[in-house]
Amino acid sequence: MNKKIAVILSGCGFQDGAEIHESVMTLLALDQQGANYQCFAPDVEQFKVQNHLTGEQVSENRNVLVESARIARGDIKSLAEFNVNDFDALVMPGGFGAALNLSSFAVDGPACSINPEVENTVRATHDAKKPIGALCIAPVILAKLIPNVNLTIGDDAGVAEALESLGASHSNTRHGEVVIDPANKVVTTPCYMLDAKVSDIYKGADALVREVLTLA
Amino acid sequence: MNKKIAVILSGCGFQDGAEIHESVMTLLALDQQGANYQCFAPDVEQFKVQNHLTGEQVSENRNVLVESARIARGDIKSLAEFNVNDFDALVMPGGFGAALNLSSFAVDGPACSINPEVENTVRATHDAKKPIGALCIAPVILAKLIPNVNLTIGDDAGVAEALESLGASHSNTRHGEVVIDPANKVVTTPCYMLDAKVSDIYKGADALVREVLTLA
Repeated sequence: MNKKIAVILSGCGFQDGAEIHESVMTLLALDQQGANYQCFAPDVEQFKVQNHLTGEQVSENRNVLVESARIARGDIKSLAEFNVNDFDALVMPGGFGAALNLSSFAVDGPACSINPEVENTVRATHDAKKPIGALCIAPVILAKLIPNVNLTIGDDAGVAEALESLGASHSNTRHGEVVIDPANKVVTTPCYMLDAKVSDIYKGADALVREVLTLA
Repeated sequence: MNKKIAVILSGCGFQDGAEIHESVMTLLALDQQGANYQCFAPDVEQFKVQNHLTGEQVSENRNVLVESARIARGDIKSLAEFNVNDFDALVMPGGFGAALNLSSFAVDGPACSINPEVENTVRATHDAKKPIGALCIAPVILAKLIPNVNLTIGDDAGVAEALESLGASHSNTRHGEVVIDPANKVVTTPCYMLDAKVSDIYKGADALVREVLTLA
């Protein structure tokens, strides 16, 4: 039977939501490698809305679940409905949404809070000894919730230091490389935390999904 | 020297803009096959804004160029700036944006109008004997502007009939298949005009880009 993977999206657009290329490459890699997936997102307002042409914040409100539905083509559920028994693993693409909507890392650094439904989902998956993959900046959520986790967010020294202050161990990586923490069943890859072309994102998502499915 | 391809986006989300998977797979295929790309979109209001979770229209205004910038990570230009001399080919992903924002086909059928900048871009590319690729429903724009073009939009009999009423010849296709019109240098593939998984979209975009680059 095909493995079934939950994917948490955080909006639609890297400046205020889920990074679109990372999200789509994650879905592509899951599909190409024979897994089924279900997208989820928290049903909350976005921290902010950003004009992606100008890079400026605009006075508008958008909902994380509603905008994530654009990437998922409407086939998405509120994260409140997540049941760990239904899934073999969890994957979280990056984008500022992971650090603004799923957590407050972009604002609060290591003192960040985690969205309660995201926290419940990660803890339930980890407690069930099921694997968790995280791309780009999304590993910050795992550093906050899983003690002494080994991970990567690429080669950003400031972010790596913040994660190590939470007890995580960080390794620098390049495109297509993953860090595997076998004890915690955590897999991470840098994607757009490094300068990247879209084919680099495919390499990272493909490698991460392969390791997550192996652990599942 | 790498070939350079112009990609016209029509928003961000298949119900009111560019289909996100088709757009990202087009960029991925171009990058993987060694081409450079520049995204463009018309700087106009969307025909409508749709809640992709509920499928209902909402009373909101969004700009096609600004929303397309989410897919392009900000690296996008107004279609008014397009200069045919700078590019070897043109590709248009689908989504309702192609039939609502780039043209009015979803509302007006064969009597549709085409956005003037889209029309100028397609005509300039065709007159320069450079290839044009179109995915999903985007071929309707080519049926309207290029006499007697051979193309595919999958296997939807109603849409095929509408295109044939404009003088086009339609062939049914499955995923990963393309219709090539060598005289007009036009390449088309069905993508989400058929029931599809995201890996099917990759196959279609990959095959289309391969033929477009061969003709370029």
